[in-house]
Amino acid sequence: MSEFTPTERTQVKRLPKRATYDRETVYGILDSGFVCHVGFNADGQPYVIPTNYGRAGDTLYLHGSPASRMLRTLSGGVPVCVTVTHVDGLVLARSAFHHSVNYRSVVILGTARLVEDPAEKMEAMRIFTEHVLKGRWNDIRQPSEQELKGTMVLALPLEEVSAKLRTGGPVDDEADYALPVWAGVLPLETVAQPPQPDPRLKSDTPLPAYLKNYSR
Amino acid sequence: MSEFTPTERTQVKRLPKRATYDRETVYGILDSGFVCHVGFNADGQPYVIPTNYGRAGDTLYLHGSPASRMLRTLSGGVPVCVTVTHVDGLVLARSAFHHSVNYRSVVILGTARLVEDPAEKMEAMRIFTEHVLKGRWNDIRQPSEQELKGTMVLALPLEEVSAKLRTGGPVDDEADYALPVWAGVLPLETVAQPPQPDPRLKSDTPLPAYLKNYSR
Repeated sequence: MSEFTPTERTQVKRLPKRATYDRETVYGILDSGFVCHVGFNADGQPYVIPTNYGRAGDTLYLHGSPASRMLRTLSGGVPVCVTVTHVDGLVLARSAFHHSVNYRSVVILGTARLVEDPAEKMEAMRIFTEHVLKGRWNDIRQPSEQELKGTMVLALPLEEVSAKLRTGGPVDDEADYALPVWAGVLPLETVAQPPQPDPRLKSDTPLPAYLKNYSR
Repeated sequence: MSEFTPTERTQVKRLPKRATYDRETVYGILDSGFVCHVGFNADGQPYVIPTNYGRAGDTLYLHGSPASRMLRTLSGGVPVCVTVTHVDGLVLARSAFHHSVNYRSVVILGTARLVEDPAEKMEAMRIFTEHVLKGRWNDIRQPSEQELKGTMVLALPLEEVSAKLRTGGPVDDEADYALPVWAGVLPLETVAQPPQPDPRLKSDTPLPAYLKNYSR
């Protein structure tokens, strides 16, 4: 199926022309990033916490310390919202009112499942690592049994999902096009800077290919 | 006062050495970004929505269409969480377990106030614009009375606030330092690309200085 089915909760009401439920678009936005914002309630107060994620098919994995309040709360099966956002540029109009931002975002609603099977946990660890840096998993020491036990992994199904995007230049009021003000888009990109070797790295350790031209 | 006072809700429990309540650090993180993630509840479901913000002293301003569910919900005085996150780099350890991310984040808890005074609304519009692009406000057509009426502005006090940061290289298990794997930090930066003029821009419109060397 090529589209997620909008529900009453994921049907985008504001600027619905910016919304999409297209599966490939959603996957693309999720796979372009690696930090999400997780929303949950504790004692009636909403919290929004940034954390890493990885995706495999229609499952989003989260992980961290078993001492994390966020993960402990989510493992209790409470409603969660996970949002991933990329900012692609500033949209500079001729009026303050029409200034905007080009962005791509995905909002996932649902309930997370605690992953207890060691094989699925190990596979989730591989997915986290490869999601951030494709090719890294085979280079590094993989988790020990004790490290796996010391990691809480949650799985959130991609079922109730929407994406929202803005692209393109400013749209001004017709009268404002006559104003002598610069208008257009200032694109923004996340760019890798030169890798900084660990002080204890042996000098003959080669830089892996996946670090030479890193981009997302 | 140089620090926000931690409360039971903003006292960082996990990795407290990464936490700070220092006011200048919080201001710095907020002023380095312009997109936040807003957490709120509707019908018991948490939602996390990306949106723009601006800061003036100890007030964070949000704005948008009066038709926005998020803004309408928040204007009812419900608990909100606003989080701002910057990802500064990938921390590449010799084991999967010790991989990490360098980041800076601020979490604000509280209740937003609907800004109704036209003068404060206009000032908030100036703050949004200048927060994204310092110098822009004086170049553009400022909001009309009708545009101000068509914008909902909320003010969130910076009172219950915490920041969390990770900096520096990987910390590996002692035995892993002998492994022949590249370790260190891959810094990530948000970088502006060449400005893209609007197709209807008059060819003699100069590029403003604030667009020539944009960085955050």
